Amino acid sequence: MRESFARSAALCWLIILGDKMIETPYLLFLGDAPDQLAAKVAQGINDWRPENSVGQFRMEGCGADLGIKDMTLAEAKAAGAKTLVIGVANRGGIISDSWRAVMLEALEMGYDIASGLHNLLRDEGTLVAAAQTYGGTLHDVRVPSVGYPIANGRKRSGKRVLTVGTDCSVGKMYTALAMDAEMNRRGMKSTFRATGQSGILITGHGVPLDAVIADFMAGAVEYLTPDNDPDHWDHIEGQGSLFHVSYSGVTMALIHGGQPDALILAHEPTRTHMRGLPDYAMHTLEELRDLSLPLAQISNPACVVAGVSVNTQHLDEDAALSLLAETEKRMGVPAVDPFRQGAGRLVDALDAI
Amino acid sequence: MRESFARSAALCWLIILGDKMIETPYLLFLGDAPDQLAAKVAQGINDWRPENSVGQFRMEGCGADLGIKDMTLAEAKAAGAKTLVIGVANRGGIISDSWRAVMLEALEMGYDIASGLHNLLRDEGTLVAAAQTYGGTLHDVRVPSVGYPIANGRKRSGKRVLTVGTDCSVGKMYTALAMDAEMNRRGMKSTFRATGQSGILITGHGVPLDAVIADFMAGAVEYLTPDNDPDHWDHIEGQGSLFHVSYSGVTMALIHGGQPDALILAHEPTRTHMRGLPDYAMHTLEELRDLSLPLAQISNPACVVAGVSVNTQHLDEDAALSLLAETEKRMGVPAVDPFRQGAGRLVDALDAI
Repeated sequence: MRESFARSAALCWLIILGDKMIETPYLLFLGDAPDQLAAKVAQGINDWRPENSVGQFRMEGCGADLGIKDMTLAEAKAAGAKTLVIGVANRGGIISDSWRAVMLEALEMGYDIASGLHNLLRDEGTLVAAAQTYGGTLHDVRVPSVGYPIANGRKRSGKRVLTVGTDCSVGKMYTALAMDAEMNRRGMKSTFRATGQSGILITGHGVPLDAVIADFMAGAVEYLTPDNDPDHWDHIEGQGSLFHVSYSGVTMALIHGGQPDALILAHEPTRTHMRGLPDYAMHTLEELRDLSLPLAQISNPACVVAGVSVNTQHLDEDAALSLLAETEKRMGVPAVDPFRQGAGRLVDALDAI
Repeated sequence: MRESFARSAALCWLIILGDKMIETPYLLFLGDAPDQLAAKVAQGINDWRPENSVGQFRMEGCGADLGIKDMTLAEAKAAGAKTLVIGVANRGGIISDSWRAVMLEALEMGYDIASGLHNLLRDEGTLVAAAQTYGGTLHDVRVPSVGYPIANGRKRSGKRVLTVGTDCSVGKMYTALAMDAEMNRRGMKSTFRATGQSGILITGHGVPLDAVIADFMAGAVEYLTPDNDPDHWDHIEGQGSLFHVSYSGVTMALIHGGQPDALILAHEPTRTHMRGLPDYAMHTLEELRDLSLPLAQISNPACVVAGVSVNTQHLDEDAALSLLAETEKRMGVPAVDPFRQGAGRLVDALDAI
């Protein structure tokens, strides 16, 4: 009861600030996705929040299938769907005529539309006009919808864990979602805090941090992770890496705005150079710990490294398990691959803080 | 000759990219500034680039005086002035009717206008209309005028020095300008690279880094400090501080995008807490060195700490000199206050790299 009151209060507060939750349940639009990978976003939503969707909408020639019910717009509407979520990457950077026709029909039927595409819904005149006519909302989740404050650094109540990586795309979001799911399973108070477009579509709310103006980055993270119950955990989705020179400023803002009580170090052991930077060698977990912990302790002197998350997808089971055991011994904290093993031991470590 | 050709080439390149230099010489608009401090920006321009202005424009009741020639718009125009530069903070966050009248007259006479005010020239309908009618340009230097790339981390030719501080507003811009001035005096190849509004108005060009979108911060710094002659120094204006949780992401992007060969550590020894963050204690120069150097070495493994710049304005001469001597001994690199002593010893240290 208290929990649900707190959620309503939080919701009101978001509405007051002009930040719109994406309304669930969704109908997941897979369009004419050439293959499963192109529908990665829809897959993520279905993996992590299956209860958020009533079904999938596939067009002729669609090569992706989430294994959930195929529905027309009308069927999904009848089943309660509120938002058509574009869960697929588009080709050639344009919204095709066939996609647009579906979107227009959806708006006409009273749907909202949510998209993480680079080309924005709001730049499509016919969609904007239809949304106005039928009272629908166009959510472009790549674009901030709120004027964020400048960070004030004030100590907030509740607990926060941030996943930081030796590189970009090493499994930070997956790790945070897995820890959140495990805490929910245990009945602990827990929220995944999305900072990128996939995470925002999965949970219906978040901050598209890479699109925030420099001065407000840390403030946006404070805004995303406000005061909470003392035993509540925010799992903040990490972005970039302190070692990745293109995006390290975003990572820095997450560390200082997030005020984490705990860091989880994320790593992909088979990579030979930093993603997109062929001249930059990979760094070790020890280097990541030694660089990120003192930085985190500026905003939260009590911060600790609670665990390591290794993405072992390119190793076989034996090699993975032996690497994890060796890593755990070396680092002195639990080292797991949450995809293979679940995030239970990471949650144990957080719960002991 | 080669130098001047290089400058022309650089200028063309900027124009191609849509980035506009602010045309000199300036007429410095002091308006009805209540006191000298309100005209800080004009003072900075006059201190560092006196050759860039033909005179000052003061309105009735102006309490500031740069000690340069008072001129009407017509007199300054006759003396060659191209741009009216708003060198004064305004009151109440609005552009007053009396200011606007001067600006309109200036546009009518063929001036451009440049401003670092929070309220933008481009949001003033009458100014926009007049600029269109008379072919003038409105420069809002707080707003990026270029679509910056994502940083690629590629090693660039030429040398770069970045000033990093234990806090915000400790003298980073002053230090960089002083080093640039000293190098110019010695006939060395040197450019001050502005990353904030004052610096941009002083030099007529730069990147308003705090207003750049997160993903492009480091790329904007790369753009600002391109390949150059092997013996050319860029003096990159620092912003924020790694210890300042509101702005540390911006500092991080400067360190990685700037790819510095040398860091100068800047400090204000009398401050009792971080600026604007009463709960955050100040950090030491040693902590700054130990945090920033490893981060800088990610993008440039050869980076060194070349010197320390201490802002001793709140100390008397004896206390200042004794603190500087003690600091130099402790840190093992030259420690100076460039305001009291000039930046000669810092330049000596850079020249020896």
